[in-house]
Amino acid sequence: MHIPERILMGPGPSTVSQRVLRALGSPTLGHLDPRYIEIMDETCVKLRKVFQTQNQLTFPVSATGMAGMECVVTNLMEPGDEAIVCVNGVFGSRMVDVMERAGVTVHKLEIEWGRVFTPEQIGEALDRHPGAKALGIVHAETSTGAHQPLEEISRLVHEAGKLLIVDAVTSLGGHPVKVDEWKIDAIYSGTQKCLSCPPGLAPVSFSPAAVEVIEQRTRKVQSWYFDISMLKDYYKGSGKRAYHHTAPVNMIYALHEALEIVLEEGLEARFARHARLHHRLREGLQELGISYIPENSLHTLNCIGIPDGVDDGAVRAALLDAYNIEIGAGLGPFAGKAWRIGLMGHSATQANVDLVLAALKDCIG
Amino acid sequence: MHIPERILMGPGPSTVSQRVLRALGSPTLGHLDPRYIEIMDETCVKLRKVFQTQNQLTFPVSATGMAGMECVVTNLMEPGDEAIVCVNGVFGSRMVDVMERAGVTVHKLEIEWGRVFTPEQIGEALDRHPGAKALGIVHAETSTGAHQPLEEISRLVHEAGKLLIVDAVTSLGGHPVKVDEWKIDAIYSGTQKCLSCPPGLAPVSFSPAAVEVIEQRTRKVQSWYFDISMLKDYYKGSGKRAYHHTAPVNMIYALHEALEIVLEEGLEARFARHARLHHRLREGLQELGISYIPENSLHTLNCIGIPDGVDDGAVRAALLDAYNIEIGAGLGPFAGKAWRIGLMGHSATQANVDLVLAALKDCIG
Repeated sequence: MHIPERILMGPGPSTVSQRVLRALGSPTLGHLDPRYIEIMDETCVKLRKVFQTQNQLTFPVSATGMAGMECVVTNLMEPGDEAIVCVNGVFGSRMVDVMERAGVTVHKLEIEWGRVFTPEQIGEALDRHPGAKALGIVHAETSTGAHQPLEEISRLVHEAGKLLIVDAVTSLGGHPVKVDEWKIDAIYSGTQKCLSCPPGLAPVSFSPAAVEVIEQRTRKVQSWYFDISMLKDYYKGSGKRAYHHTAPVNMIYALHEALEIVLEEGLEARFARHARLHHRLREGLQELGISYIPENSLHTLNCIGIPDGVDDGAVRAALLDAYNIEIGAGLGPFAGKAWRIGLMGHSATQANVDLVLAALKDCIG
Repeated sequence: MHIPERILMGPGPSTVSQRVLRALGSPTLGHLDPRYIEIMDETCVKLRKVFQTQNQLTFPVSATGMAGMECVVTNLMEPGDEAIVCVNGVFGSRMVDVMERAGVTVHKLEIEWGRVFTPEQIGEALDRHPGAKALGIVHAETSTGAHQPLEEISRLVHEAGKLLIVDAVTSLGGHPVKVDEWKIDAIYSGTQKCLSCPPGLAPVSFSPAAVEVIEQRTRKVQSWYFDISMLKDYYKGSGKRAYHHTAPVNMIYALHEALEIVLEEGLEARFARHARLHHRLREGLQELGISYIPENSLHTLNCIGIPDGVDDGAVRAALLDAYNIEIGAGLGPFAGKAWRIGLMGHSATQANVDLVLAALKDCIG
């Protein structure tokens, strides 16, 4: 089976290192094997460090990133609950959909794609919807590259007595995500972005307040597969390991190794690297006359305007064919108008930044 | 990260071959990369061969086996629907739970664990519950080792105008699973059993009749992640590939290779191998005075009584420590009373059968 070696600079997956691929290809153990349980426990300990949290209920959901959203929503919310969901791109819209499928009455707070929410907008929404149980917001909107500040918003959400749900799929491991300091109640991410592990797992973390809400549910979670009340007996790290489902053993090896790499580099050094390379890319793009779309861009995902007269698909195909470089297309209102260049984890190197700039210059012609 | 090389002879995962592990550790591609799309399409073609079906809607759900059950149930059934679910072990009970969480009124047809359903029992249940939309049954009950014949039951279910839902987690790739010939409407399996691929994917297949039912739903599927109406645009193999979620790329490589191995051996030869080794194991166990629990045993999972006076946990620990052999414990009423020896896929070799017999003899003492 021939598989080309791409340089993955799209919205994810990012390039996976040989170390992680080797871990992934290690011999499969049984999901109740004592050695596997150790590896899984170690993985959860490392995840807490990367999420910067003491939350005991921190583990990887056995499915890709979007399953993290579904796990968080279906466990925290019950039919008839109200929630405020902030929409400024694809992933906010998805949270609305996932909430509504869980029987939640959603109050959408919509702003233009590419912009971020101000504390004032959030405060007004909280005032308008006193019955809401939670507010959901996207920290790193993969569809627009917008980077949403969370600290002040978190303060307002908690002053209003609500739970804060955060989508950190494209920020975890590339930008600070301080779950405890920012008082995030439930958060989900994916492995294939700034952690540079293959897609297939969704790290999640729940605050003690969120756990209490889950424990006080009046009815079963609609999803058996994502039901925390059963999953926690497998992941919680104490007492008997109740079998729930067969864990994706090899993917856990890969995540274990990917998190080890993150912690070896150190979170602060890693964030600084992503910042430095984002600025290097930004300067290079400026020289090519290319500008950014969002008002407050992520370092990890660079959503940029396609220059007038340039053929979107032809350039992306040329990058792939001539350079083995993948970049992402625009989504929604940005389809055909934007490219998304990922600088995530193992893909975020000075060599890749300089190469993608040279390649873009060549392909735009 | 030290990982011991176990001989996996429990209820799954089975031992994964080096070929599959190497495929798993291949470089990660983007989920919209043209080469990845080819590999995914080829994987679906191979899955159809192994399921012995022409069903176009045949693909691997991006999560472990139990997610296959949830995907089938949440897509086929709507709140207020009725279903008959046959319960003779853990997985029948789970299907009841998953159905109820989807708002289905379940009519349980329960028999003793270890026994299989007769066509008469099924016929009576169909007569008693004319309002049922579907009947769910487990082909290979992993908790008891019971092998459920399906052909006659399928005839009755379709005569009554119902849909047939089948759990084939522990049979696909080890026993014949003839989706078209047996007129199964919806079926799910796991990759980590007789396909000898790591856990992490759930192959599913839907008949044209099932697809029609899904297309005529009056409300959205409660799960966004498992919603076929969106997933099919990614997997169906024609037209534009709509992005839904980030596919578990490396796991698909592994499944592609595992299915290739199944097809190289040939389905009939593979089933014959599982049958031959089951009989060899059975004879050896008989010599040790150990008997089978179910009335109609699977070849792939051998649920056997623990001899009187033998310490369950001590023997399993000794097998693991001294021989690196994993076998499974009993579940539910069989906890402490049964062992489950898997002979699945790459684990089903004459060497392993003879070794586990010698090791059991030694450990029982």
